[in-house]
Amino acid sequence: MKSATIVGAGLVGSLWSVYLAKAGYKVNIVEMRSDLREADISAGKSINLAFSERGWTAFKTVGIEKEIEDIALPMYGRTMHDLAGNLTYQPYGQEGQAIYSVSRAEINCRMMDVAEKYGDATIHFNEKCIGADLENGIVYCQNTQTGKRSEFKSDVVFAADGAFSAVRYRAMQKLDRFQYSQHYIEDGYREILLPANEDGSYKLSKTSLHIWPRGRFMLIALPNEDGSFTCTLFMPFENHEYAFDKLKSKAHVEDFFKKIFPDFYELMPEIGTVWESHPLSSLAIVRCYPWAHGKTVLMGDAAHATVPFYGQGMNSGFEDCSVLWILMQQYDEDWPAVFEQYQRMRKPEGNAVQDLSLDNYYVMRDYVADPKFLLQKKFERRIQQLYPEKYIPLYSQVSFTNTPYSVAYENGKKQDVLIKKIMTEYDIEALFSEDKIDRLIHDLLEKEVL
Amino acid sequence: MKSATIVGAGLVGSLWSVYLAKAGYKVNIVEMRSDLREADISAGKSINLAFSERGWTAFKTVGIEKEIEDIALPMYGRTMHDLAGNLTYQPYGQEGQAIYSVSRAEINCRMMDVAEKYGDATIHFNEKCIGADLENGIVYCQNTQTGKRSEFKSDVVFAADGAFSAVRYRAMQKLDRFQYSQHYIEDGYREILLPANEDGSYKLSKTSLHIWPRGRFMLIALPNEDGSFTCTLFMPFENHEYAFDKLKSKAHVEDFFKKIFPDFYELMPEIGTVWESHPLSSLAIVRCYPWAHGKTVLMGDAAHATVPFYGQGMNSGFEDCSVLWILMQQYDEDWPAVFEQYQRMRKPEGNAVQDLSLDNYYVMRDYVADPKFLLQKKFERRIQQLYPEKYIPLYSQVSFTNTPYSVAYENGKKQDVLIKKIMTEYDIEALFSEDKIDRLIHDLLEKEVL
Repeated sequence: MKSATIVGAGLVGSLWSVYLAKAGYKVNIVEMRSDLREADISAGKSINLAFSERGWTAFKTVGIEKEIEDIALPMYGRTMHDLAGNLTYQPYGQEGQAIYSVSRAEINCRMMDVAEKYGDATIHFNEKCIGADLENGIVYCQNTQTGKRSEFKSDVVFAADGAFSAVRYRAMQKLDRFQYSQHYIEDGYREILLPANEDGSYKLSKTSLHIWPRGRFMLIALPNEDGSFTCTLFMPFENHEYAFDKLKSKAHVEDFFKKIFPDFYELMPEIGTVWESHPLSSLAIVRCYPWAHGKTVLMGDAAHATVPFYGQGMNSGFEDCSVLWILMQQYDEDWPAVFEQYQRMRKPEGNAVQDLSLDNYYVMRDYVADPKFLLQKKFERRIQQLYPEKYIPLYSQVSFTNTPYSVAYENGKKQDVLIKKIMTEYDIEALFSEDKIDRLIHDLLEKEVL
Repeated sequence: MKSATIVGAGLVGSLWSVYLAKAGYKVNIVEMRSDLREADISAGKSINLAFSERGWTAFKTVGIEKEIEDIALPMYGRTMHDLAGNLTYQPYGQEGQAIYSVSRAEINCRMMDVAEKYGDATIHFNEKCIGADLENGIVYCQNTQTGKRSEFKSDVVFAADGAFSAVRYRAMQKLDRFQYSQHYIEDGYREILLPANEDGSYKLSKTSLHIWPRGRFMLIALPNEDGSFTCTLFMPFENHEYAFDKLKSKAHVEDFFKKIFPDFYELMPEIGTVWESHPLSSLAIVRCYPWAHGKTVLMGDAAHATVPFYGQGMNSGFEDCSVLWILMQQYDEDWPAVFEQYQRMRKPEGNAVQDLSLDNYYVMRDYVADPKFLLQKKFERRIQQLYPEKYIPLYSQVSFTNTPYSVAYENGKKQDVLIKKIMTEYDIEALFSEDKIDRLIHDLLEKEVL
């Protein structure tokens, strides 16, 4: 029987096992941690993820989308909170289009179930990868409980072991001419759990992703199933007026929230008390190449870890699965050919999702508070509403289609230049209020400006 | 007694031990390899290095420059060899200024002698660093002969263990927020030993660095003491008309040299036979930050490995020693303060020497064959000859002064713009032949253009 080893029972590794099972592989998954499903996970310990089109596509391909539908909460737009507590709403796309808030821990538990149920995978927990023979398809492990060492040898190895991939660090990085960089951005994040009301209801609209944009930093909130919100404060570690190193005491934290996020503070006056209970974490972009060597290949964060600002880290990892699936059929499981084609196709996509993620940080923390930016988005949405086949805004291309990230990124840059130019030539705001905007859009399309 | 551990008995580690001894430290050096001095080193196995002003400065500071004077061969300029075998000579600087060819193996042996003699250092050979406790100043080693593990604990630890530093890889890289990149250029190199004539004399002028510039690639030759030259072919690995992957057989190699380096081929018709005896090697730039953590600090290539095209890799490592020496006195051996200041001062210099090295590759393989470039250099040299205090060309700032690399680099960029502009306004070649160049330079200085 054909055999495969997957390193990492995270989101990508678990999903990929289902694909491999479908192709008739016996799959072993080695996972460094203990079984997440047996642990007590409080929502506040789980970072939230935004599931979007590429994720759904990867799930639908193997028919398991039903497995996560009930834990995915649709968010139809962004709700911005200004200093005075005023709200502005911006839909993400067209009517009915949404991205979906899921808890990382919850979706990971589901995915492990799915891996065992549909992937017929055996998950070996507490097995830490301590080395790999890339060419011969061997993963060396040591059990973190017993200290016992073991080897997993198979026809093919998939390293889906995350941003700090052991396979990459212990084997790939030692290859001659392996290009590698780990770049930490100067901002970190701290998570805060905003609890539900006593009756279990939500303290904020649960169909939005909430943002408190403050220029150089921001707070966001994503809904959980239980009425709570997982909130994240992204901010520089140091060297700025507002930075984590300035929030050293309960009083500092309280003053900061009262002044900077007054409406949030009202919802959560206990913020100063719970502040220290979640650690401050860093954010990195990891780039490397090649992604494959011998019988071993990197997937997901192990290949292209990104910062979380486009909500595409998980989705791009899932997309690795759909692409690899197509290629393994196209090349009839000739793995060297599959891997070569996979890394050539996916490396530019990994780069693009990283560039998009960094760009979107500036959008989220700053531009979404800018009336000009909001007007531009409104204008773009109107164009799309009228001529959905002719114009798809960048965010929609990334979140609601399977257009390659690199293509979307290039399209987006051209669109941005074009729309900004039109906005200097016409008073778009006035045209909206005079109800003449549709006429303009029609004319621009006729003249082939758009 | 104050104690220090140095990881790596290479050039920088050995030199630094002398400095530490001078300050009263008991020094242990752990070295992964066996004692180089007991091995039989043929000149052809030793890459050649160019020793220049910063190196001399670092040696003079501790009074050991005499120790290497007899193995350093002055090269006063570049001799370019064109396709027809014509030679062009370009002095590196003013009368008497030279860079010095030294064999890596030979200087390393001398430096180990120096470390033991003046540094009172104990060099522990065959001790491979397998980990480090950065904060507590502990280096964990395993003997490659006996397998025995040991620990070296000291007040302070200096990791001078090269581009693939074990301390950096095994400890620093695991630190949160450690910025790191290893970037391989698309070119590799292969060394060739051009033997002396039978009577021991040199086959080429021994007071030059020889270059066969060929646009996308180049061959260089540096003299050895015994009449031979260590030659290096730098070329793309693949994907180019001329690339290493195209030189697969003896016949390919011979045809290539006959056609591309005909005068070299005449001197060394056996090239096809010896080709395979030296391995093809890759070239990387390693950038990282921070350089220091707790009681441990990176020096030389471990902190800022570069490609060899400015001949400044070794010199910049030696300069790390002179700078660290000044700082340890300035801050009275308050090591946390010394380290902080050292990394802040030296990181921009490491970046600059890397940028300079990459830029100079284009200069060496291409521009030095361009009459316009040679005329520009001649013009700059003349300005310097007439007004040595007012104008120092970039190459001279880097190789014949201790001006910080970053300052030299910025100066160089400004100079280049200025000189190129003057050269579009005046026919410099004609002015040289009409003997009016000095007049022009004088006028330009009067008008404060220069």
